[in-house]
Amino acid sequence: MSKTITIALDAMGGDAGPSVVLAGAELSRRRYPEIRYILHGEADAVLPELEKYPTLKEQSVFHPCDVSISMEEKPSQALRRGRRVSGMWKAIESVKNGEADVMVSAGNTGALMAMARFCLRMMPGIERPALAAVWPNVRGESIVLDVGATIGADAEQLVDFALMGSCMARALYDLDRPKVGLLNVGVEEVKGLEEVRLAGTQLKEIDLPGLEYAGFVEGDDIGRGNVDVIVTEGFSGNIALKTAEGTARQISTYLKDAMSRTLMARIGYLFASKAFSYIREKMDPRKVNGAVFLGLNGVVIKSHGSTDGEGFAAAIDVGHNTVRNRLQEKISADLARIRPWVEEDANDSAVESSQTEQNVQRETSND
Amino acid sequence: MSKTITIALDAMGGDAGPSVVLAGAELSRRRYPEIRYILHGEADAVLPELEKYPTLKEQSVFHPCDVSISMEEKPSQALRRGRRVSGMWKAIESVKNGEADVMVSAGNTGALMAMARFCLRMMPGIERPALAAVWPNVRGESIVLDVGATIGADAEQLVDFALMGSCMARALYDLDRPKVGLLNVGVEEVKGLEEVRLAGTQLKEIDLPGLEYAGFVEGDDIGRGNVDVIVTEGFSGNIALKTAEGTARQISTYLKDAMSRTLMARIGYLFASKAFSYIREKMDPRKVNGAVFLGLNGVVIKSHGSTDGEGFAAAIDVGHNTVRNRLQEKISADLARIRPWVEEDANDSAVESSQTEQNVQRETSND
Repeated sequence: MSKTITIALDAMGGDAGPSVVLAGAELSRRRYPEIRYILHGEADAVLPELEKYPTLKEQSVFHPCDVSISMEEKPSQALRRGRRVSGMWKAIESVKNGEADVMVSAGNTGALMAMARFCLRMMPGIERPALAAVWPNVRGESIVLDVGATIGADAEQLVDFALMGSCMARALYDLDRPKVGLLNVGVEEVKGLEEVRLAGTQLKEIDLPGLEYAGFVEGDDIGRGNVDVIVTEGFSGNIALKTAEGTARQISTYLKDAMSRTLMARIGYLFASKAFSYIREKMDPRKVNGAVFLGLNGVVIKSHGSTDGEGFAAAIDVGHNTVRNRLQEKISADLARIRPWVEEDANDSAVESSQTEQNVQRETSND
Repeated sequence: MSKTITIALDAMGGDAGPSVVLAGAELSRRRYPEIRYILHGEADAVLPELEKYPTLKEQSVFHPCDVSISMEEKPSQALRRGRRVSGMWKAIESVKNGEADVMVSAGNTGALMAMARFCLRMMPGIERPALAAVWPNVRGESIVLDVGATIGADAEQLVDFALMGSCMARALYDLDRPKVGLLNVGVEEVKGLEEVRLAGTQLKEIDLPGLEYAGFVEGDDIGRGNVDVIVTEGFSGNIALKTAEGTARQISTYLKDAMSRTLMARIGYLFASKAFSYIREKMDPRKVNGAVFLGLNGVVIKSHGSTDGEGFAAAIDVGHNTVRNRLQEKISADLARIRPWVEEDANDSAVESSQTEQNVQRETSND
């Protein structure tokens, strides 16, 4: 039997809260019997739902708490109100103190990021976190980061993202040496930002056995799947992700519209109904749910807030895979290879930690 | 009869050159009989093609030249080799000296931008040009700018883009007061770039009768069509555009794949063939071909290099509409309204011009 993998869940997170979180937990548990859960949330809301799943109940530990973070709360407010007491914080803390291997939340993204950063702190040598999304393409899947954790990134941070993204691709897919591309614009005279160019030069020079630098890619390369990892800073990454989601929705609307316009189209739809199920599955956002916060001392998975049980289970699966395939260890090993001096500096971590705390407070104070 | 509209064409531009350019010219001429063309290109290549269209030939003026800019040439090289002598330059010059009302090229984007800026110069009060694309959405069309003319933009430049984009929306669509949104990221704790926030504040304060500021929008709002104009700087705009194109192509691949998988699907496809034509038309990139360089003393239209006659005709139609609906006058009037002092400064234009020349040379010198 596989070694147990313990996953902490923010049971109150997401638009629907415990009903979706527990439905997803049950689905993943059936797929991966080695999973055990630590559930954090309000007893009144979680326990009645938990009754529906006897085996899940038996195999889970429930930690009640009184505070829950709402989806609308500002990160600064969430941090003030929910630090050390909310289900979201407690679930992250389960990772910090070693009770859990990974945590998953469908809650407020900003609050989750602020709390995760505050509680887990950055890995030594990594300055800023990245949110890495799984992106479907015509060949399979790729990883795009950062999709919104941090706005702007200098060359060194882009190199960090490339390194972490390649580790994630190795952890999630069966790849020895993922191809990594830097997102850039193709218009000849513009030639991209200085930091993107510089990151390209650095990536060419870096000798990492688990990363193949494939040069610049453009927006339309993401869907082609000619690279496994696409690296960019959070503003353009977030815009790319949302634009792709919007375009997919737009085309779905055209499809639905077209297939209900005439009797002939409706008959055609009936004949081709299996083909349409295939397309729906290909375009199902639930299949690629589960973005990963990278760069922290512990893995935090962000699920879409509006997903259902199936979608939340996909996010848990991502968490399960990052643990089983030792994502954090891969990142640490690669970091030690390109910046061996960082390990030594980590002794100053007490100082760094208090600085991090100040940074998080400053960054979230005026929102 | 309508007043004649004269359009200068870079007959050598694009992957296919004169065959596509003249096929497009013929299509637009039939739709808008008031169009007259000035054709610039190499006699050997253009004249035999022109023989195919007797009316077009009769109604066009042909100016032969010996130099053509290739699709791969760097802007600096194109400028050195093609300034004052290439078909592309000559077509732009036709606008400058008043022979033509607008020019259209399917040629090298970087070269076109460098030459247009060099030849026409920036409008007084506008610091940097924007490339504005027509973007289909579920309600109709919107305008997205900048899609790659300039990387980065400060708040004032974003406001300029908003103003010019709203003028373009009024010129192309039947709108009195287009809704303008600023592209931003929605992740709570990040809250977008300082310059985007500042541009939002300025747009709220500006009193322009032809522009309704609708606040921040996200990537997935572009396809929804809840605003008419989406404003962003060129890096993220280019990535959004290319990502949307890539996503559309990706879903087309899924569709084709699904509809040929089984006999039932193929039968369904036959029944619904009209519905599929409808979707193909909705997703046809040729329909929205023709991006507009805004901010110059004259209108320059950029067609996709790989389009066909139908697509090139769409780009000519955009040019035709910008002239018929007096785009340049609209922009000048709105600029005078928000920055009345600029008109007076325009007397210093001799000094400014020589600075622009130096800028263009500097910007294109190290590519």
